Amino acid sequence: MPQPVHNTPERHYFDWAATAIPEPAFSPGSFPWGNPSSLHSEGRKARDALEQARARCAAVLGVPPKQIYFTSGGTESNALVIYSVLLRKPSMTVLASAVEHSSVLANCAVLERMGRQTGIIAVEKDGRVSIPALERALEKYPRTRLTLIMGVNNETGAVTDMKSLVRVLRTREGPPVHVHCDLVQGIGKIPLDLRDWDVDSASLSAHKLGGPRGTGLLYLRKPLEVIYTGGGQEGGIRPGTENTFGALALAAALERRAAPGIVQEEYQKARARWKWLIGAFKTLKRCTLIPGDREQEDPRFSPWILQAAFEGIPGEVMVRALDDAGFAVSTGSACAIAGGERPVLAAMGVDNQKSFEGIRISQGWSTAMEEVELLFEAIKSILGFL
Amino acid sequence: MPQPVHNTPERHYFDWAATAIPEPAFSPGSFPWGNPSSLHSEGRKARDALEQARARCAAVLGVPPKQIYFTSGGTESNALVIYSVLLRKPSMTVLASAVEHSSVLANCAVLERMGRQTGIIAVEKDGRVSIPALERALEKYPRTRLTLIMGVNNETGAVTDMKSLVRVLRTREGPPVHVHCDLVQGIGKIPLDLRDWDVDSASLSAHKLGGPRGTGLLYLRKPLEVIYTGGGQEGGIRPGTENTFGALALAAALERRAAPGIVQEEYQKARARWKWLIGAFKTLKRCTLIPGDREQEDPRFSPWILQAAFEGIPGEVMVRALDDAGFAVSTGSACAIAGGERPVLAAMGVDNQKSFEGIRISQGWSTAMEEVELLFEAIKSILGFL
Repeated sequence: MPQPVHNTPERHYFDWAATAIPEPAFSPGSFPWGNPSSLHSEGRKARDALEQARARCAAVLGVPPKQIYFTSGGTESNALVIYSVLLRKPSMTVLASAVEHSSVLANCAVLERMGRQTGIIAVEKDGRVSIPALERALEKYPRTRLTLIMGVNNETGAVTDMKSLVRVLRTREGPPVHVHCDLVQGIGKIPLDLRDWDVDSASLSAHKLGGPRGTGLLYLRKPLEVIYTGGGQEGGIRPGTENTFGALALAAALERRAAPGIVQEEYQKARARWKWLIGAFKTLKRCTLIPGDREQEDPRFSPWILQAAFEGIPGEVMVRALDDAGFAVSTGSACAIAGGERPVLAAMGVDNQKSFEGIRISQGWSTAMEEVELLFEAIKSILGFL
Repeated sequence: MPQPVHNTPERHYFDWAATAIPEPAFSPGSFPWGNPSSLHSEGRKARDALEQARARCAAVLGVPPKQIYFTSGGTESNALVIYSVLLRKPSMTVLASAVEHSSVLANCAVLERMGRQTGIIAVEKDGRVSIPALERALEKYPRTRLTLIMGVNNETGAVTDMKSLVRVLRTREGPPVHVHCDLVQGIGKIPLDLRDWDVDSASLSAHKLGGPRGTGLLYLRKPLEVIYTGGGQEGGIRPGTENTFGALALAAALERRAAPGIVQEEYQKARARWKWLIGAFKTLKRCTLIPGDREQEDPRFSPWILQAAFEGIPGEVMVRALDDAGFAVSTGSACAIAGGERPVLAAMGVDNQKSFEGIRISQGWSTAMEEVELLFEAIKSILGFL
């Protein structure tokens, strides 16, 4: 059965935010292949396995199993929530932060085109939504019934102070607001508690956790009416024959990477590596961190992602030069809406030149300190040539 | 890496229409795990593999690679086409046959609820759409711009004479009609040629071909504007990080099961087994084939699926009795809209009693003639008790 082709020893992978190096250990050794909706023995075994996978995911996330819905990934989980709006009052407004993933912003643009009102919540210079910014957006759009604010930004690592924002939304007068949180870069990366964050829904993706592609989940506190329907699978939230293998693999990945104690430990290790790298970058005259005031150990940012610009070197040139030297980094999101544009950085007020020079470096649980040092040496060496 | 748990020798699987027994051979031995949208070496290798998978699928289906879009499965492929309607003129009508899969009919019901007009094309007693029925529907709904007619019915095996129907649609005056065809039970099962059928789009699912769950494709002759958007993957037709592994596995499954020569050969073998079974059923007084006039070798039906009712035995009871005896069959679609109802059989004019007694028997490429004989003996034995 399938084995991912792994890095040769000469390659150093620093693009974990795009996809993690998959771990065969996250695949179930064997799994029941029947259709979980079939009545016969093969079907019932598959159903049992699917529900066990759901219970295991729920246990790691600290929520009831019935609040977990398996999907094809983070993009679909976000879309299920966004398009549920089409079955609600046309007068409601959807608010998304200016730095959301393209799977949120592009679908909000479609909603807008279909005559629905959507609005943007501005971010501060550090790429985070502040309470005043949220309050301004709510004032401008009083009919807001759904907000989409990601937990950890995929390009800068900015961590949202979700608890404070949710408190603002919950204490507001008027009909309740559904709070959706894209946690694709958050789960298994930073210490967080879904219930404590008090969000109504959240999305995550297996392949960012070393699990297989095409698998994710939607945490949904209360069932939602969705437009995408079919055979009634997943409580009517996500149709299509259930991916038992994917669900089991996701459960394994969550148990190994997202259990609270493990996250805390890996977070500290990642932070130590990033402390060194950020410190080293601060010694380079031609390097600008994005945002510029990011500290070596900065609780506003995930220690798994770093955005930096190198003066005079377009991001794409740096990516290719590093690739030739054996290092995989990226300019920004692999899921870019339009080539070359950097809407996340623009929303932070980063000037065009710096945006154009920005690269994203993201690490994973198998990243070694030595690799971080080698990456820094490689960048220094490229700066000497270009 | 994952191994499906296979049947013990005592089990005989006759529910291939719900899901095929997966074959590890259809999984690539190894695959590049990078994000195909990344610029670095890991990303480019994954992109190359994805495009090779696309080219291989296209070659089997006899269409250009750019007309193949990877999706999460048949349900999603159907939904992508159906919801594209929301970006078109609100005055257009969507026509679906009365026997479509729930992933078509349930989403049409949502469209209707959103104020769009949808209509049903009636079927004849054999469960097939006839030219007069199509013409009547078109007369009733002159603004039809999209038709959804499946190639092979998942409950009865009824094969649509798509070429004749498409001819009617193409020679009609007025704006063109997009012809979508659900081929989940057709590809790899009956000899067919997508270009010859002249459909605008078609959907298929990997797991019905022995490939992995959560993978499918949409054949699309011309790009379509879809509402579900995101990172621009798959030419903007299907967002989300591309499932390279799934695409390669689907290509392998198609090459092994859907190459024209192979389909012809397997079709003949399946027909011989079904000829025997249908002949045997015709000797049972308490057995009624659905439809009643289905012949032993009947080109109107796929020889992989058979629907039959046994007098006095509710379908669900027969399924459980056969399950206890080691045989997996189903009542109808695993993707049922509502428990107990059989809309496909109702559309064919089958009376409630017979519908209630109907079971679906479906075979696959590894089904042995001996297993078919054992199934018949088991049913005879159950009829002796119940």
